[in-house]
Amino acid sequence: MKAGRELAVALVSGGMDSAVVAAMVCRDHEPAFLHLDYSQRAQERERRAFEAIADHYSVRRRLLARVDPLGAIGGSSLTDESLPLSRPGGPSSAIPATYVPFRNTHLLATAVSWAEVLGATRVYYGAVEEDSSGYPDCREAYVRAFNEVVRQGTRPETRLTVLAPLIHMRKGEIVSEGVRLGAPFHLTWSCYEGGETACGECDSCLLRLKGFREAGVADPISYRKTP
Amino acid sequence: MKAGRELAVALVSGGMDSAVVAAMVCRDHEPAFLHLDYSQRAQERERRAFEAIADHYSVRRRLLARVDPLGAIGGSSLTDESLPLSRPGGPSSAIPATYVPFRNTHLLATAVSWAEVLGATRVYYGAVEEDSSGYPDCREAYVRAFNEVVRQGTRPETRLTVLAPLIHMRKGEIVSEGVRLGAPFHLTWSCYEGGETACGECDSCLLRLKGFREAGVADPISYRKTP
Repeated sequence: MKAGRELAVALVSGGMDSAVVAAMVCRDHEPAFLHLDYSQRAQERERRAFEAIADHYSVRRRLLARVDPLGAIGGSSLTDESLPLSRPGGPSSAIPATYVPFRNTHLLATAVSWAEVLGATRVYYGAVEEDSSGYPDCREAYVRAFNEVVRQGTRPETRLTVLAPLIHMRKGEIVSEGVRLGAPFHLTWSCYEGGETACGECDSCLLRLKGFREAGVADPISYRKTP
Repeated sequence: MKAGRELAVALVSGGMDSAVVAAMVCRDHEPAFLHLDYSQRAQERERRAFEAIADHYSVRRRLLARVDPLGAIGGSSLTDESLPLSRPGGPSSAIPATYVPFRNTHLLATAVSWAEVLGATRVYYGAVEEDSSGYPDCREAYVRAFNEVVRQGTRPETRLTVLAPLIHMRKGEIVSEGVRLGAPFHLTWSCYEGGETACGECDSCLLRLKGFREAGVADPISYRKTP
């Protein structure tokens, strides 16, 4: 560990937002990268993207683990392939069918447990609020509430803050910032489906393509279909 | 489901506190019992206690799952058998070595994800604040903070509250309440060690024995050693 650089845990899904967060963390901290499978459709492909990004930054501290219960619980088209990906979440809901119930609390709980044992002072994740799919656990109010749980639920001597540096950025701004930082977008995977080529049609592909379009930058990955 | 009874998820570890919570939930709600392995020493034995308690109450809705990352992360004498069970948590800490970093956030996250998918309105867990081992995630301030995360991190139409009905009770009061409700203490397991007979020496056995002593009730399980 270089002197003066504090240890930080970054949640790295393998998508474009997390690649930008990874770039920020490697610039400012001694990095520890965390990736979680939770029975999501693209888990094999996302794990490969994670490893490629971690290799790109020569990150030694890596943790890959599973959040087992989310697959068993289901209730999301991301973890239950019998549900169509794009169907609305239900008649009374503004939340898309891809919402995995309370998912980010599982991911952040793992990041905080690991950070507490490592002695890290920060946990970073790539939540985006306005310009996103509208998941409740990607909003600033959620991050603020979670930080209070961290304060109350860890050792009194633990000093640990969860940060979501992209939360108020537009997708285009995230792409521009990633280009500025040299984030390895060519190694990332955003598509909700697995496979070798991104579908270009799911919400996640559409948001990504919008980001690159707004930034005036070519997306380095290829798509089966582009609008 | 009987008319008028709302569905509630109970976290049932298999210990004496969770048996009393199980009794309360079965009295007031349509129950769903959740049990989680997290590589704790006594996981086999605790799982058997869970099944026995769920059978006792004829609970159909059961979820058994694993919290995988906690074993990989370690940092606790409950999940890392190379650490002595009873050593203090460190020179600067008032927290015992058995503290599993941020554990209850993993357990409650699973309970909330399941409750949201089931449409349950309550999650119960058997945290005890004063008369306990002093874990930070068993305090009322933690439960209050977690409930704000539930409000912020679930669907807007989800109405879900986490309750810890034992949190301000003394161990003796918990035993008396359990006796009053007919909680199946004979089926429970509290000892941090696994095996067939409780050790009678670990913090968890000592707290349990204190509770039965204070309540003036004989503990129906046997011990290798009693003080």
